[in-house]
Amino acid sequence: MTRPADPDLRALPLPRPESFLYEERERVGVITLTRPDRFNALTFQVYRELTDLFTVIDRRAHAEGGARALVLQGAGRAFCAGGDVDDIITRLFERDAEGLLRFTRMTGELIHAMRRCKLPIVASVKRVAAGAGAVMALASDLRVMGKSSFFAFLFPQVGLSGADMGASWLLPRVVGLGHASEILLLGDRVPADRCAQIGLATQVVDDEPDRDAVDRAAFALAKRVADGPHFAARMTKTMLQQELDMDFTAAIEAEAQAQAVCMQHPDFAEADQARQQKRAPSWR
Amino acid sequence: MTRPADPDLRALPLPRPESFLYEERERVGVITLTRPDRFNALTFQVYRELTDLFTVIDRRAHAEGGARALVLQGAGRAFCAGGDVDDIITRLFERDAEGLLRFTRMTGELIHAMRRCKLPIVASVKRVAAGAGAVMALASDLRVMGKSSFFAFLFPQVGLSGADMGASWLLPRVVGLGHASEILLLGDRVPADRCAQIGLATQVVDDEPDRDAVDRAAFALAKRVADGPHFAARMTKTMLQQELDMDFTAAIEAEAQAQAVCMQHPDFAEADQARQQKRAPSWR
Amino acid sequence: MTRPADPDLRALPLPRPESFLYEERERVGVITLTRPDRFNALTFQVYRELTDLFTVIDRRAHAEGGARALVLQGAGRAFCAGGDVDDIITRLFERDAEGLLRFTRMTGELIHAMRRCKLPIVASVKRVAAGAGAVMALASDLRVMGKSSFFAFLFPQVGLSGADMGASWLLPRVVGLGHASEILLLGDRVPADRCAQIGLATQVVDDEPDRDAVDRAAFALAKRVADGPHFAARMTKTMLQQELDMDFTAAIEAEAQAQAVCMQHPDFAEADQARQQKRAPSWR
Repeated sequence: MTRPADPDLRALPLPRPESFLYEERERVGVITLTRPDRFNALTFQVYRELTDLFTVIDRRAHAEGGARALVLQGAGRAFCAGGDVDDIITRLFERDAEGLLRFTRMTGELIHAMRRCKLPIVASVKRVAAGAGAVMALASDLRVMGKSSFFAFLFPQVGLSGADMGASWLLPRVVGLGHASEILLLGDRVPADRCAQIGLATQVVDDEPDRDAVDRAAFALAKRVADGPHFAARMTKTMLQQELDMDFTAAIEAEAQAQAVCMQHPDFAEADQARQQKRAPSWR
Repeated sequence: MTRPADPDLRALPLPRPESFLYEERERVGVITLTRPDRFNALTFQVYRELTDLFTVIDRRAHAEGGARALVLQGAGRAFCAGGDVDDIITRLFERDAEGLLRFTRMTGELIHAMRRCKLPIVASVKRVAAGAGAVMALASDLRVMGKSSFFAFLFPQVGLSGADMGASWLLPRVVGLGHASEILLLGDRVPADRCAQIGLATQVVDDEPDRDAVDRAAFALAKRVADGPHFAARMTKTMLQQELDMDFTAAIEAEAQAQAVCMQHPDFAEADQARQQKRAPSWR
Repeated sequence: MTRPADPDLRALPLPRPESFLYEERERVGVITLTRPDRFNALTFQVYRELTDLFTVIDRRAHAEGGARALVLQGAGRAFCAGGDVDDIITRLFERDAEGLLRFTRMTGELIHAMRRCKLPIVASVKRVAAGAGAVMALASDLRVMGKSSFFAFLFPQVGLSGADMGASWLLPRVVGLGHASEILLLGDRVPADRCAQIGLATQVVDDEPDRDAVDRAAFALAKRVADGPHFAARMTKTMLQQELDMDFTAAIEAEAQAQAVCMQHPDFAEADQARQQKRAPSWR
């Protein structure tokens, strides 16, 4: 079966953001924040271009060669320290209520785009995920940390609330209301071993002396997802997110429909063929 | 007080499924999947008969001698390996979209029936709970595992999504979205010790050399529930499930009503009498 | 800027409950249940006066010197053993359906008031939090326990359901449905070390030989919250609670609005000033 007639499956151009790096390797889309001297602190431009990227990248996944899983990482020694003090924080004081709301809506839109993006996202939490960086890692689907890494939802330290970019919605659903209340009310560092225990870290790797081991492990994890049946993986992410807002009866019906679609995908037949022929499956 | 006049309380006949075993011992209803040579893989008939059983068994609980808690277990060395490859998987390839949806709705209806069934269900996860078997154990209220037991939500390995029979709705509510995303996106085995840590196993018992120790522990746990105030236990299960779909204010009112009903049940007065007379209570 | 013109900010009188103690020290409001000989078992009056306190205390927080965080503790050797057998339990048997519902609605209203109260509440779980005492600790935002402390949702032991005062709604959201089902169906003691693991204890302190160490640690924790940017902390608690009932898209917008408000509060500017001047911030 040839499929190029479907205009949705044409090879869309690779996104070319100006404020960070995006490249695709082995079906993994790697997003690299490139302000290592500022611990990859976010600028207005990074927020906007990241939101655009997560919004459009999903369509490329259908095309030949498109990414099937994403890594979100930082250049240098850290993942992301949050909003940049000079580019963002200081300039917020010039804004009135409307301007501030425009900013907080823009930051929330990034998290919304990450959760709507059907490609699974692996955050590579090298050393520190702080403030908005912590929320971006939280909104990822899988999180790799180094033994020395930590989360810091440090909003209390800067006079702000933990209701930032969806953190107060996401964190209780990821780690439960008990841990979430403590973490957001106190703003203390959450070290990697505790993150693994409460479900905030998917994997913790040795990062001494080589901190880039975290990025390598994150890439390997994303590649595992990309090498798997990605149509089904995208459906899994989509449903996990959607069903957080569904009641039980609606969810049972939604999953029946979702799985019936997956059963019509060639990957399901391929898995069965591979099993009968005692070989590894070759996913579409 | 004699109660036989109430037609709801007549002794309903014991269910007699053809594709698995059901028996009641010491007020515990024991469901045994009986295809040990196939690791108790599910057939179309097992799905249908299990759904029927969970739907009707609750009414027998009110009758004299009816079961007050359930055990779901497998004959032989394992709990359940999921849908049978020959009876189900292979035959799904003959179906069109409508036929597939009929199947996924049927499987979802089993999980719906388990969660609606007011009798607490204890899954005896001997060795392996895989695929649909993992979802059945997940939909149970309590789960006993052996030290060598594991869950395998292996949908990615067969080209399917983790949105199967309610798994993508239930798992985040049982273990949190962090653990659930990892487990459903990767499909790796989840060993018993991790299950205990994240709330997927209620109890882990030594299963070497005697794997049936898992079934015995599951029966003992179900018997504890059955020996307790079962009217209240059924209300607890009912409300835990219902309130997952309620907002906080509605839940506070719903619990006020539920507990006011329990306070009118003879078991509440019996507990008070037993306390005053310094004896063990004798539940209705 | 002087603010006394705003009538909302006038110094409201300190609440003077008759059935327990309330005092404010160092911006922490300390609620002490004062029936140590009954392990601080609750009476009808305590229920009513606690509900009133949580309802009004939030307004005093805006006034000069008002409390900015709360501690809920018990006098003597225990936190709270639940409803008093003589004052409450025995007298419930005199009530009809309407009277019982009036009681369960009154107890639910206390938990409702605690979750609506915007001041973070720290429960000092000295030795035991049982029955209604367990639910009060559960409805607090942070929980300090001693190593010998335990929770006991003992409803099954008295013939009642775990659907009491919101416990069946709160517990699955705090520790997940797996742990919650076990805890509410079985009613067993949950010791401090397990509470810490599952997110039911924020902190566990050494309480031998000095059990009051728990109260001191709870006060210190509340003081940390009170010494922080309390406008933001109250917003964090408010949003954590509200967003449990919101869908994701609504939550993203709600947080954008909430944080935009916090960014207009003087504490946000103060944090920035303090950072530039390399000094500790002085919150409003």
